[in-house]
Amino acid sequence: MSILYRIETDSMGEIEVPKDALYQAQTQRAINNFPISGLTMPSAFIQALAYIKQAAARTNLDLQLIDDKIAHAIIDSCQLIIDGHHHDQFPIDVFQTGSGTSSNMNANEVIATLASQQLGIKVSPNDDVNCAQSSNDTIPTAIQVSAALTCHQQLLPALLHLEQALENKSQQVNHCVKTGRTHLMDAMPITLGQELSGWQSQIEHARRGIELALDNVSALAQGGTAVGTGINTHPHFAAIFAKNIAIATAVPFSTSSNFFYSMSSQDAVVALSGQLKTLAVAIMKISNDLRWMNSGPLAGLGEIALEPLQPGSSIMPGKVNPVIPEAAAMVAAQVIGNDATITVAGQSGNFQLNVMLPVISYNLLQSISLLATTATQLADKAITTFTVRDDHLKHALSKNPILITALNPVIGYLKAAEIAKKAYKEQRPIIDVAEQETDLTRTELELLLDPKKLTQGGIAQ
Amino acid sequence: MSILYRIETDSMGEIEVPKDALYQAQTQRAINNFPISGLTMPSAFIQALAYIKQAAARTNLDLQLIDDKIAHAIIDSCQLIIDGHHHDQFPIDVFQTGSGTSSNMNANEVIATLASQQLGIKVSPNDDVNCAQSSNDTIPTAIQVSAALTCHQQLLPALLHLEQALENKSQQVNHCVKTGRTHLMDAMPITLGQELSGWQSQIEHARRGIELALDNVSALAQGGTAVGTGINTHPHFAAIFAKNIAIATAVPFSTSSNFFYSMSSQDAVVALSGQLKTLAVAIMKISNDLRWMNSGPLAGLGEIALEPLQPGSSIMPGKVNPVIPEAAAMVAAQVIGNDATITVAGQSGNFQLNVMLPVISYNLLQSISLLATTATQLADKAITTFTVRDDHLKHALSKNPILITALNPVIGYLKAAEIAKKAYKEQRPIIDVAEQETDLTRTELELLLDPKKLTQGGIAQ
Amino acid sequence: MSILYRIETDSMGEIEVPKDALYQAQTQRAINNFPISGLTMPSAFIQALAYIKQAAARTNLDLQLIDDKIAHAIIDSCQLIIDGHHHDQFPIDVFQTGSGTSSNMNANEVIATLASQQLGIKVSPNDDVNCAQSSNDTIPTAIQVSAALTCHQQLLPALLHLEQALENKSQQVNHCVKTGRTHLMDAMPITLGQELSGWQSQIEHARRGIELALDNVSALAQGGTAVGTGINTHPHFAAIFAKNIAIATAVPFSTSSNFFYSMSSQDAVVALSGQLKTLAVAIMKISNDLRWMNSGPLAGLGEIALEPLQPGSSIMPGKVNPVIPEAAAMVAAQVIGNDATITVAGQSGNFQLNVMLPVISYNLLQSISLLATTATQLADKAITTFTVRDDHLKHALSKNPILITALNPVIGYLKAAEIAKKAYKEQRPIIDVAEQETDLTRTELELLLDPKKLTQGGIAQ
Amino acid sequence: MSILYRIETDSMGEIEVPKDALYQAQTQRAINNFPISGLTMPSAFIQALAYIKQAAARTNLDLQLIDDKIAHAIIDSCQLIIDGHHHDQFPIDVFQTGSGTSSNMNANEVIATLASQQLGIKVSPNDDVNCAQSSNDTIPTAIQVSAALTCHQQLLPALLHLEQALENKSQQVNHCVKTGRTHLMDAMPITLGQELSGWQSQIEHARRGIELALDNVSALAQGGTAVGTGINTHPHFAAIFAKNIAIATAVPFSTSSNFFYSMSSQDAVVALSGQLKTLAVAIMKISNDLRWMNSGPLAGLGEIALEPLQPGSSIMPGKVNPVIPEAAAMVAAQVIGNDATITVAGQSGNFQLNVMLPVISYNLLQSISLLATTATQLADKAITTFTVRDDHLKHALSKNPILITALNPVIGYLKAAEIAKKAYKEQRPIIDVAEQETDLTRTELELLLDPKKLTQGGIAQ
Repeated sequence: MSILYRIETDSMGEIEVPKDALYQAQTQRAINNFPISGLTMPSAFIQALAYIKQAAARTNLDLQLIDDKIAHAIIDSCQLIIDGHHHDQFPIDVFQTGSGTSSNMNANEVIATLASQQLGIKVSPNDDVNCAQSSNDTIPTAIQVSAALTCHQQLLPALLHLEQALENKSQQVNHCVKTGRTHLMDAMPITLGQELSGWQSQIEHARRGIELALDNVSALAQGGTAVGTGINTHPHFAAIFAKNIAIATAVPFSTSSNFFYSMSSQDAVVALSGQLKTLAVAIMKISNDLRWMNSGPLAGLGEIALEPLQPGSSIMPGKVNPVIPEAAAMVAAQVIGNDATITVAGQSGNFQLNVMLPVISYNLLQSISLLATTATQLADKAITTFTVRDDHLKHALSKNPILITALNPVIGYLKAAEIAKKAYKEQRPIIDVAEQETDLTRTELELLLDPKKLTQGGIAQ
Repeated sequence: MSILYRIETDSMGEIEVPKDALYQAQTQRAINNFPISGLTMPSAFIQALAYIKQAAARTNLDLQLIDDKIAHAIIDSCQLIIDGHHHDQFPIDVFQTGSGTSSNMNANEVIATLASQQLGIKVSPNDDVNCAQSSNDTIPTAIQVSAALTCHQQLLPALLHLEQALENKSQQVNHCVKTGRTHLMDAMPITLGQELSGWQSQIEHARRGIELALDNVSALAQGGTAVGTGINTHPHFAAIFAKNIAIATAVPFSTSSNFFYSMSSQDAVVALSGQLKTLAVAIMKISNDLRWMNSGPLAGLGEIALEPLQPGSSIMPGKVNPVIPEAAAMVAAQVIGNDATITVAGQSGNFQLNVMLPVISYNLLQSISLLATTATQLADKAITTFTVRDDHLKHALSKNPILITALNPVIGYLKAAEIAKKAYKEQRPIIDVAEQETDLTRTELELLLDPKKLTQGGIAQ
Repeated sequence: MSILYRIETDSMGEIEVPKDALYQAQTQRAINNFPISGLTMPSAFIQALAYIKQAAARTNLDLQLIDDKIAHAIIDSCQLIIDGHHHDQFPIDVFQTGSGTSSNMNANEVIATLASQQLGIKVSPNDDVNCAQSSNDTIPTAIQVSAALTCHQQLLPALLHLEQALENKSQQVNHCVKTGRTHLMDAMPITLGQELSGWQSQIEHARRGIELALDNVSALAQGGTAVGTGINTHPHFAAIFAKNIAIATAVPFSTSSNFFYSMSSQDAVVALSGQLKTLAVAIMKISNDLRWMNSGPLAGLGEIALEPLQPGSSIMPGKVNPVIPEAAAMVAAQVIGNDATITVAGQSGNFQLNVMLPVISYNLLQSISLLATTATQLADKAITTFTVRDDHLKHALSKNPILITALNPVIGYLKAAEIAKKAYKEQRPIIDVAEQETDLTRTELELLLDPKKLTQGGIAQ
Repeated sequence: MSILYRIETDSMGEIEVPKDALYQAQTQRAINNFPISGLTMPSAFIQALAYIKQAAARTNLDLQLIDDKIAHAIIDSCQLIIDGHHHDQFPIDVFQTGSGTSSNMNANEVIATLASQQLGIKVSPNDDVNCAQSSNDTIPTAIQVSAALTCHQQLLPALLHLEQALENKSQQVNHCVKTGRTHLMDAMPITLGQELSGWQSQIEHARRGIELALDNVSALAQGGTAVGTGINTHPHFAAIFAKNIAIATAVPFSTSSNFFYSMSSQDAVVALSGQLKTLAVAIMKISNDLRWMNSGPLAGLGEIALEPLQPGSSIMPGKVNPVIPEAAAMVAAQVIGNDATITVAGQSGNFQLNVMLPVISYNLLQSISLLATTATQLADKAITTFTVRDDHLKHALSKNPILITALNPVIGYLKAAEIAKKAYKEQRPIIDVAEQETDLTRTELELLLDPKKLTQGGIAQ
């Protein structure tokens, strides 16, 4: 099966392009130059480019920088891409020129072709679609817009959903008292509801950190053009552009307070990635707790039973594993690694431009998207659906010598330590030993050592 | 030289302690147990422990949980440590028990000894100094307090100082026009002042990120005691404690909204470290730019000359190197590594406690302190003191064919590319070739291609 | 367009599977359970699974553990997958159960279906295809086999190719003398050939490190079955299996000396990833050097000119950028991040199994593949094709006061420093000042300060 | 208390130096220039510098490059530093010039002063002590020598000690059969001895990886001088130097095959750090297993009891925690972070020199030393001393339905799954259900399901 080609020309000369491709010469050069990973830029990035080109066309229309008819055709063509069409026309590798110029030109060319087809006249990728823009402000803006949109549309709702699931479950299991653990060793009791409230608080704090980081991410580089000075763009372009894209996306985008900052560094994105990493660390902790609470069923902690989702072993019949927390923990590992990539890439600004933009965007969007789906899966297939093995919790609790802690204020730490050790050594209930070793009555002790009561804090008296 | 010992006793039995040591049995056990790194907890951490024990004693006094006289003696003893005394009595290794219990007991013991010496009666490390507290809320609180204090006292002022130095220098060199660089290749001109404003903006954004992260760090774990339930502490303890420590330190500390969050995770600190890493990335970028701008003096870019601080080579006479930006870049590398440690450690919470607390604190405080001194050095020994090699800037600028960009709106991108290539190939000034290849007059071109004017943005017309 | 389904059954009950799918119930459960990333396991991993199932069938045939006819049908079916067919039948997400059991069952089911179709009788995924195996030895083995094969088939040849390109170019440009640079500052001269020989040595050392790491990677986990004890497998299975897969792949695979090591840890793979990271660090250094040597063309170092591959800017006409080194540097950043993921995942072994296997494999294979294509691109589109701007090199060299270093043995370091500073300050050639300030004659100085001669080392006399 | 000063002079002019300091002007400049961290270069690095200066003096003596008497005085002075004297005369901050020139000059100056004091004549830091050397070959060599020596003297013996402890313990507990765990879920049985053999194998493999990495580390940069060409040194210097330092240290040092590689990159050290990180990952796994095996004592796994080393809680009496594995896990986190620092720093070579050498050395030596002490502590205070809670192991084992796996070859996977689920659901011993559901007799089943026998692998028949 042979592919038919047409000849396209750019400032470097002629080049063969597949006959039906919407892209033109520069996209084709990039396809030829970068057969590296087979990975292409995410759909969210392509969509962000289309939002940008559309908002730019609207701005150029307002400012009368391009022909009205052409502007409207560009706006229509961008809408097609925003709506998910033609993403297969963006085949350039993630590992391309560090500025992402190839991806910018890819967008310029595809949109120019679509607009040309609509109008029947030639629309220029550079002079029309890219009018008043440079790759050097467009690609940083695309990184920012795509990150903000996926956070607002996917990640933040998923985190709220997970928080709600944790809150609901926390209330539902708040009557279950269990042995607390510090250093993995038996400690004072808590309720399962308290434990889950800690997880909920982790997710909530992580979400707020992300929201705060989005403030800087939402102040766009667009308007800086080639080096941050705004050369070849109208003095009002940046402000009108920000307003236009904010309206189109319903996200409160604004203009960067300093284009040199927004183009020569990717600090706003590095900071956002640091917050995503913090969320990953939280998810790792929660996933590991879930895995351990579910462990056993007989030779483990056996505190809860996660919903069985699939056979757990190709060799051991009847085995069921905590697969959702495992997947979530792997996502956390991936996000932590993605942050390392972004950290290295974030250092690679020299003078007026960071030149690791595509790899930053790829990793950032992957982290956002992975965390979003994982939060949903954790909520729906782990948190909401686990059952509590209350008999196990009670059995363990009844033997816990650490409950003696509650008597510290009455009998002192050293005496209490003595009783705890004696109880453990002789494998006797702590209350029996305490009765024997102190002046407290059985009734007093039952009150003082009631696990449920001990989860409510306060001082024995 | 023999050391004299005394015998101390704890719940595990007798142990030899140096005769003059202020610490007691549990500190000695930890000294014996952890001969690992030779590194001890930073002074800022020890001081934070003293602030905590003092605020706790004040709170216990308010709530009448301990004897008045003892409380006052504890308060006085803590003040000595806050004032920098007796830090040599905290010899326990950083790599100790993961909860930092050994460091907490070290503080309890030293303070108890000092208070006992003052009063002439026995003050208990556990029942008096540690009253209403656990290591499990105290050590996370000490991490938070020490981090917040060093940020407020050292890092944030140093960053403001660097921002001011950048702003001053930016204004001072704003008339110097230079060749902008993207991809390290000649691009449209900018002023040195614009370039430095980008750096200033990086530092300012990083500082604000740190300030925001400190909000969560300032909401303290104290009051959660053993597992977060507040067992063995008074219901009002946490709130009064936070008020007391806020007064003593003049930092607006408050109480955590969820003790389970603050004790079982170190997410607030992981997030702060992520912001410190972002600052490190910014410092790496600025340092590398400085190093390259200073490069040469003859076979490099030679745009500026950093103040000569020391001979640069043991073998090459007359060589002077950009040593302060190099030191700053190494600091950035260290902070990035410290963040990796904190990220791994942050994942190590299980159930009710994170058990990598000492290593988190050590790395966090090192990062804060390194960034603070580095910001000051950068300001005073690099930014403020460099001189501009204006002749070099002008020479390079005069030959830059990329200035043609300004003609895009007049002659179109393709025609402009043709002129730029011709000028570069024939090694002729761009203005000469443009005059020959377009209809524009010499006067028009001089206006359109004036580098200084091109740094102000806008569209040629 | 509706999809038609059939009903499949496993130990958990019935489930709908697309009518034409080659996979069965457990694959479908995993598809349903893990809608997380949309990323699937790489082809190299699927091929490795097929090699394993084929070698296992041959071994089971030898040991008479399964029916002859079934064994042969399994062998044939595996060959189809090895040859690249049916990879679309492996749609399970990378972020799945941490053991990769789902992927193992996916292979078992697809192969069983193909074998059943061939024979017209039912072949069991568990009892036949998975006979004498467990996911817990199979998936670690698949990680090892796929990594070793891609290294041997792609990465190592690409590195040898790059080394050869560097050696060729090094010889070709060995006559070009340039100003050496340390701290980015002018230093004693070297030849471009010497400089490139350093890069070649970096790649060669990195390649050898990878080869050594492959030794451990090639000692396979297969034979350990469920927990490392080899339960449900024949005592000779492991050895025969290793021989069979070594023959089929032409890679010297052997059996692990300790199955508990190979299954509960991924240390061999963590070590390999560490070597890939070292290669990434080398590529980052080389790419940055290339970018800087190519910088300018007028306001940069301008030592070489990389082959122009595409227009460099959507706004600045005539600009050409060092796109291949930029892509290579981004690959390095990605590999460093992937190593961070693998490091976190490598810590996640508990007891008898590491449960982050799929994410380890995904990142490892991506790193190997990225480095392979990048090495080729660097060789063919950067190293081999750059030209030297010899006039620039000579111009810079002629002014370098650091050449005075050669006189240290004759006149001492301090005197030499004095002369260098004077020459730089007065902007005079170093030889003129040296003639004036020392007893050496012009002829002696010309000999002593000849840059070409100075690149050959030795002591002036 | 006032410090008395003397005036010293270098190529930059006069400077005040403490009257009794052995160092001179350049050290003092560095002290003034870098008040950054308060951290100084490790003793092992200072000792390595002394070994280098001594071997260089011996070489210069052989080659008659310096005066005999001076050479001998230098050799004697170096020996003092090798023996641990005068390390307080090396006060320069780790965060200094990236080449470590300040540390090299510090060594040159201290040694020159000592030699001058011995001889009564002026010995020159540059022309005598530094004769035939540059910081640019000396500091990389010091990194290599100090790393190799600390590995050979501390880390490798400590790892062998840990391996031996694991082997001894493994044999001692090999009769203890326990429930294996994969995914933290009950799996087929193993012996504790088998489990520990896996840990031993991890340490052994990690040790071998370090030994292999030391091969490259032992090929020294010395002889490359300023830029790798060997300018100002004798053609035989490098080879004789390597021989001399090999003899003095009893480590087989050699000369690098390519000085440009060894000076412009730190790849050999990055690779070594990657191996240290692999060891850290292994230690993390082992530490976590130990912590979990020790967990409880009542509400955890309770498989072993680590030796009690200190009271575990300031509030919970009688609590004892797994403090040594916790310290070891924190060390692992630190080493992983140090590797991240070294990875960032390793990328910072430009042209002829890496300029993050001091921070690389500091982190590398810290990692080596931390791992060495930790391996010893793990061996002596955790592995050797833990006791097995055999009753717990047996109790858990008796209830494990997964033992049914052994019947797969007899009854098939699906039937086995059915029996396992029934046993778990009805809380009945698996043998009872198997007796009821299969044709196997009680005697056959007792044989087939004997846990001890199941740890020996093989197929039921």
